[in-house]
Amino acid sequence: MYRTHTCGELRMENIGQQIQLSGWVQKTRNFGELLFLDLRDRYGVTQLVFNMEANDFLAERAKRLGREFVIQCEGKVVERSNKNPKMPTGDIEIIVNDFRILSESKTPPFTIENDTDGGEDLRMQYRYLDLRREEVQEKIKMRAKVSIETRKYLDGLGFLDIETPCLIKSTPEGARDFIVPSRISPGQFYALPQSPQTFKQLLMVSGFDKYYQIVRCFRDEDLRADRQPEFTQIDCEMSFVEQEDILNTFEGLIKHVFKTVKNIDLPSFPRMTYDEAMQKYGSDKPDIRFGMEFVEMNDIAKGKGFSVFDNAELVVGINAENAAEYTRKQLDELTDFVKRPQIGATGLIYLRYNTDGSLKSSVDKFFNEDDLKQWASKSNMKPGDLLLVLCGKTDKVRKQMNELRLEMGNRLDLRKKGEFKCLWVLDFPLLEYDEASNRWFAMHHPFTSPKKEDIQLLYTDPGKIRADAYDLAINGVEVGGGSIRIHDKTLQAKMFERLGFTDEEAQKQFGFLMNAFEFGAPPHGGLAFGFDRLCAVLGGVDSIRDYIAFPKNNSGRDVMLDSPSTVSDEQLKELNIKVTL
Amino acid sequence: MYRTHTCGELRMENIGQQIQLSGWVQKTRNFGELLFLDLRDRYGVTQLVFNMEANDFLAERAKRLGREFVIQCEGKVVERSNKNPKMPTGDIEIIVNDFRILSESKTPPFTIENDTDGGEDLRMQYRYLDLRREEVQEKIKMRAKVSIETRKYLDGLGFLDIETPCLIKSTPEGARDFIVPSRISPGQFYALPQSPQTFKQLLMVSGFDKYYQIVRCFRDEDLRADRQPEFTQIDCEMSFVEQEDILNTFEGLIKHVFKTVKNIDLPSFPRMTYDEAMQKYGSDKPDIRFGMEFVEMNDIAKGKGFSVFDNAELVVGINAENAAEYTRKQLDELTDFVKRPQIGATGLIYLRYNTDGSLKSSVDKFFNEDDLKQWASKSNMKPGDLLLVLCGKTDKVRKQMNELRLEMGNRLDLRKKGEFKCLWVLDFPLLEYDEASNRWFAMHHPFTSPKKEDIQLLYTDPGKIRADAYDLAINGVEVGGGSIRIHDKTLQAKMFERLGFTDEEAQKQFGFLMNAFEFGAPPHGGLAFGFDRLCAVLGGVDSIRDYIAFPKNNSGRDVMLDSPSTVSDEQLKELNIKVTL
Repeated sequence: MYRTHTCGELRMENIGQQIQLSGWVQKTRNFGELLFLDLRDRYGVTQLVFNMEANDFLAERAKRLGREFVIQCEGKVVERSNKNPKMPTGDIEIIVNDFRILSESKTPPFTIENDTDGGEDLRMQYRYLDLRREEVQEKIKMRAKVSIETRKYLDGLGFLDIETPCLIKSTPEGARDFIVPSRISPGQFYALPQSPQTFKQLLMVSGFDKYYQIVRCFRDEDLRADRQPEFTQIDCEMSFVEQEDILNTFEGLIKHVFKTVKNIDLPSFPRMTYDEAMQKYGSDKPDIRFGMEFVEMNDIAKGKGFSVFDNAELVVGINAENAAEYTRKQLDELTDFVKRPQIGATGLIYLRYNTDGSLKSSVDKFFNEDDLKQWASKSNMKPGDLLLVLCGKTDKVRKQMNELRLEMGNRLDLRKKGEFKCLWVLDFPLLEYDEASNRWFAMHHPFTSPKKEDIQLLYTDPGKIRADAYDLAINGVEVGGGSIRIHDKTLQAKMFERLGFTDEEAQKQFGFLMNAFEFGAPPHGGLAFGFDRLCAVLGGVDSIRDYIAFPKNNSGRDVMLDSPSTVSDEQLKELNIKVTL
Repeated sequence: MYRTHTCGELRMENIGQQIQLSGWVQKTRNFGELLFLDLRDRYGVTQLVFNMEANDFLAERAKRLGREFVIQCEGKVVERSNKNPKMPTGDIEIIVNDFRILSESKTPPFTIENDTDGGEDLRMQYRYLDLRREEVQEKIKMRAKVSIETRKYLDGLGFLDIETPCLIKSTPEGARDFIVPSRISPGQFYALPQSPQTFKQLLMVSGFDKYYQIVRCFRDEDLRADRQPEFTQIDCEMSFVEQEDILNTFEGLIKHVFKTVKNIDLPSFPRMTYDEAMQKYGSDKPDIRFGMEFVEMNDIAKGKGFSVFDNAELVVGINAENAAEYTRKQLDELTDFVKRPQIGATGLIYLRYNTDGSLKSSVDKFFNEDDLKQWASKSNMKPGDLLLVLCGKTDKVRKQMNELRLEMGNRLDLRKKGEFKCLWVLDFPLLEYDEASNRWFAMHHPFTSPKKEDIQLLYTDPGKIRADAYDLAINGVEVGGGSIRIHDKTLQAKMFERLGFTDEEAQKQFGFLMNAFEFGAPPHGGLAFGFDRLCAVLGGVDSIRDYIAFPKNNSGRDVMLDSPSTVSDEQLKELNIKVTL
């Protein structure tokens, strides 16, 4: 036996007990006569005491213990004279009778503390040591909690956890596949799944009715910051349901997770159409922790001789409350911000509503006080507020204003950690047009059902067709999305045609699904959450990487394993492939 | 809304209610005036009734419904005059007011019945239809139940579900890896994990203490019957534990699963050493649903002038109770059975203990009645029993006798479905010698800890070293196994040396794990269950394939997807590889 208790367990009621603990030496504090040692395990930290007077031999041995040594000790629980209310075990300490070293440690390359001295690269190389740090452990523990609570909730509703294969078939549509050479079928390849989309639809055709899986997915994309080549999805599908059933079911899931993991009772999630989200926030995943909704100003800003506005398709403002005191320098920063190439605005107009009631804008030349009063009134400005205005082509200026709004949200501290605002965004467009390839693409995927009332637009105005598709945004982050699927083979065939597939192409890529639809497909729909992303949002953190035990870096490398790596010529030969470098 | 109830839900207490159901047309029975239709969904079957007299238009429409059409219907629950006690809904039926077709179906290529007319190949090609059959659905449902109950049990004990990567590094040791070309690192490859072994050990080094994962594993092996290139493991690891802790924890898991999934209370699992299992059953995974233990007969069978016995290392028998009446033909069959090349015995000796008390053997020439009485007595034979005897080299003859024992178990119906006998097999050998490559191999894997008292044999008699390694066998099937791991870097280095690794090789393949052990590794150990296999055993079935929603065939092909398949030249070019056929 290595321990009677964990290092996070002992309390006042254990006083007087002989116990055994095992764990890592977090740190030692040597006061000559007394040596204090913090022993750490997953469950917490307990203070050990060695007394030179009582047992100098043992205390001398203890002094030689280095950081991160693993020891097993035996001792008596006593009340601390100097209690530490910050530690759950802070009321007690252990007078050690004896200990043994289970495993020595070299000095770690960085300190195993929340506030570590190790840089990102070093910590990734020694990820197994990074994972010892409490704040990283807590993230991995929270992920496990989200996982089991998700499962309990869905299992409780009758969802079946059904595993779908990882070695599947490559389909050119969508992102790039990772492929896996087959040895037994020379010259042929499996692909790793980008998602189990077609399998979950097949399971509905099979009649499983409610399916879920927490499943690994793979995309060989050019990695942007915070993208991983492998990632995890909470993948769900239901039969004989309408959109409303799905929204309610998964709103329930998210509420359950917030309640059980964070003890937060979320109110009903508001809903907004895609069009409204774009108009009010310039984003299909608005952060609604704060208002600052877009104010469209064409009617009051145009026709006053300011050609920049007059030539713009849309003049739009946001009212940054209590920001009228912004300095010249701060306003210049904002102008620089919107002019960055990633955002691409040509300039920024402002209107201050000073606390003395006066109005001051950067375009006073063109607008008189009455004009500016109209601006202020339409934007619901109060004295002390600052109106920021952009103009240009509608789609572009909305995106620019979205960035500016989020930036102002950050600067004014309106995007509070610990506050969570969920939002369903509904009625996404079914198709988007790609200028480059001169064709329509499915915005979601080619199985997404158009809204019944919009199907007639398929050949007249495809861009206007709305889909039964929905996303869940939390605090401005898209954590999940899904749709009602097409279950009618005729409509599905039309959709493939509209997307420019020939019959053969459609058959080659999605033949097994289209064939399945010939044998009685139920109405169905579903949704998938980005599990890594959901965990990061719950943790109030932007990066998903710390919620993954062994993540890859931005080049898709695992620096701890040093992978990918070369393989032997025999391996390649057996697989009938050759590197062409 | 598509339904108010499922097809498995309605009972006497629903009589009089107006309800809606949706599902698949299982079959129709047309009695002229009345049409009965069985409507099926995941939850059951409900009988619908159409009455020509009451609504001929509706009934005529219903007559045109084909098998596997998906319909939604509305009607009234009434009591059946002709109740069907075999169906949970057999007390009621639905007088249909109206229905609509949600989806038509072509005639399926085989009947959607437990007793289907579809052959294996056809069913695999249309797996989504095969999965509609009740017996297949039940297997997939049972698997989901085993999964969630496993998770609940382990989560309840504080195990953390931690995901490990799928894109890892290829290590030549062990079975063949599937590899994945990297586009971003040209000429380099990821490998898919054969198991998360090293990762779970790293997680212990990180201090996670209790880990589990239900995880996909990959092995590019030459596929024997009932092997899949991708399979699922329940993978577990614990720190600060001894073998006893692990056995108790996972005995608890298996008991929990049997109780919750099959409502079976399993008694404590017996334990047996590897040596004892080999001696008594010739197998490291004996089926102990029946006795028929080996009787070693050297002392009574040798030295009587029968050179076959005299020249054999081991003469061994099994007592097949109540089989003395076996005919000549049956005995010949058994002789043919043991002589098959896969088994390889040269002959089979028998002794009948006839019900009249007389003894009759196939070697009467060499053994007198007293000799044979000794045989009977040592084998605990009663009148009516049959002793079957093999002889040869110890290891070989034990394996042969194991096959014969299992065959006799089958023939005598001693391997009862529905009966479950679990057995821990302990103290596996650490190493096995490979004559071909003239070196020692780790029987389990190179991280397995030798028993403390056997370490001294490392350079004197390595074959005798026992490991802290254990397997769980249920009904003669190995469902899981594991070991205490080496956590001492010096011992680990010795082990690699003994296995013939140079320092560089060891460093190259397992460097990250050996490095991790430099920083304070806790004592740890674990175990992995073959999840597909465990489900098959729980289901009382030999084949794992039906417990996998989308399995591959014996050539590693998914015939539904037609995968693996060729990929485009552009894909290969982007990956810097070329097919060399």
